[in-house]
Amino acid sequence: MQVQVLGSSSGTPTKQRNVSGYAVFREDLKPWYLVDCGEATQHQILKTRLSLFHLEAILITHKHGDHCYGLPGLIASAGLSGRTHPLTVVAPAEVLEFIRAAMAMSEWNLPFQLQLSTPEALCEHSFSWVAIQSCPLQHRVPSFGYKFNETHISRKLDIEKLKAQQIASGPHYNRLQRGEDVVYNGQQLLAKNYSYLAWQPRIMVICGDNETPSCLDPIIDGVHLLVHEATFLADDLHKVGSHTGHSDVRRISAYAQKKAIPALLLTHFSARYAPGEGMQRLIDEATEHYARRLFLAADGMRVKINKTLEAECVQRGFISS
Amino acid sequence: MQVQVLGSSSGTPTKQRNVSGYAVFREDLKPWYLVDCGEATQHQILKTRLSLFHLEAILITHKHGDHCYGLPGLIASAGLSGRTHPLTVVAPAEVLEFIRAAMAMSEWNLPFQLQLSTPEALCEHSFSWVAIQSCPLQHRVPSFGYKFNETHISRKLDIEKLKAQQIASGPHYNRLQRGEDVVYNGQQLLAKNYSYLAWQPRIMVICGDNETPSCLDPIIDGVHLLVHEATFLADDLHKVGSHTGHSDVRRISAYAQKKAIPALLLTHFSARYAPGEGMQRLIDEATEHYARRLFLAADGMRVKINKTLEAECVQRGFISS
Repeated sequence: MQVQVLGSSSGTPTKQRNVSGYAVFREDLKPWYLVDCGEATQHQILKTRLSLFHLEAILITHKHGDHCYGLPGLIASAGLSGRTHPLTVVAPAEVLEFIRAAMAMSEWNLPFQLQLSTPEALCEHSFSWVAIQSCPLQHRVPSFGYKFNETHISRKLDIEKLKAQQIASGPHYNRLQRGEDVVYNGQQLLAKNYSYLAWQPRIMVICGDNETPSCLDPIIDGVHLLVHEATFLADDLHKVGSHTGHSDVRRISAYAQKKAIPALLLTHFSARYAPGEGMQRLIDEATEHYARRLFLAADGMRVKINKTLEAECVQRGFISS
Repeated sequence: MQVQVLGSSSGTPTKQRNVSGYAVFREDLKPWYLVDCGEATQHQILKTRLSLFHLEAILITHKHGDHCYGLPGLIASAGLSGRTHPLTVVAPAEVLEFIRAAMAMSEWNLPFQLQLSTPEALCEHSFSWVAIQSCPLQHRVPSFGYKFNETHISRKLDIEKLKAQQIASGPHYNRLQRGEDVVYNGQQLLAKNYSYLAWQPRIMVICGDNETPSCLDPIIDGVHLLVHEATFLADDLHKVGSHTGHSDVRRISAYAQKKAIPALLLTHFSARYAPGEGMQRLIDEATEHYARRLFLAADGMRVKINKTLEAECVQRGFISS
């Protein structure tokens, strides 16, 4: 289970960073999910292996333009990708209105259905391989985080136990492995006793703008990777003013440490912090307060939660073709 | 006077081409103009020397998304550029509504005024250094071309004539050069008799989607460079069907030849024609019907109309920084 950063800039694009967008996918499965869709997110997707044809759902964190202005173009291009299966969009009601306004203006004839709903209604909705849940955050406008809880996990047979109990191999082995209970020689065998998950569910949370990390308290237990904005250094946020409704590096790092979150991906940086060496001060402030696995987002970066539930960076930026 | 192609793809962006956008500028003056603003036009502008601070007007050709979905993000970013002077947007009424909807959704507080008007109302409007006029075209939806007629041209003194008439030098020389009539030794000297334009006004037309080149008849005389879509080769357009409302390479090339337009920049190519070698068939079809100066658009390409009124390509693509 991976997240690929499509945009890590706050407010406005820079030469090195686009505005917000995060792709959640698994290497072995085609459906994928998009959190936020700032302008030119579809352009960033062209630099990945992902296709609009297999995009299953878009989840928008809040209505600010740097998180949603890419929706009309991306949806229109999905219409040109040949897809006919529905596309789910979860977004605040005003963002859904914005999509409808764009569609009406340009007289779209989408060859697929748009399934529109709001984050408030997203309570552990099951998608192809993941259950997604929303969590309200604190910002100048209603903002949400999305929790991805992996549900599609292959099972392994407990061969030793089966052999020990002299249960011979046969088609019932496959059924037990798929999680089905079977009858063998007149005896009922429960799948849960003879097979087990090949790995534990991986859990990731991707947040919109949020000045109050503790908003995440209700959903944070068991999370393996938290993706959260750190728009400013603490001192800079103090100068800019708390009216912005943003977090700073210290605040979110301290929260992640307190909650023992094993991995933290900071993102949504103010344009004042240049990629590369400009990140050092952010790293310093973060590591002062957070002692576990830390990543600072760059566009194209992929962070994977392994089946051992450890997060690692598997790609630092887009690979030029 | 130059045009820089910011996007040359029709419908959807590709890895090599963005959707429509054209910057019109002069090297010696700061104000510039943008025709069309497909998604990620502001990202393309980051690859040029142009700044949103000095953008004087945006002119949208029609309401299809690939020509206008970049407006909300670009205008929002202009708000972050520190500008306080007004920005003119000329666009079909529904596009102006789309901008208003985006502004209302994201709760913008723009630090400058947006001056919104429609193309129908644009009859030789004077901007800083150019007069712009709209021309209705023929497409599936109302579409327009924009004619740029240079008005800010320095004047030269006819020194020989002044000397021949024994008019001594003095402050009246400067005034005559600026185009002011003066009184010298009790005699009125008309500026038009003693100074002249340093070069003739340069004229460029940039068009939206258009299936009927002759729509340009009312404004085409004297044009030095025509920028026009050539979405398909003639045979391909025949296969795709005329319902698309587009021109093909043959149609627009033959029109430009008939009207003796000295330079033609073809653009807005279907994604089926790859940049580079994929362009050869388009070049072949164009040169079969048009024998003058031909350019095929690439993103980042700059075409300049020199003061001798001849067009030349001064840059083939974006220069990587």
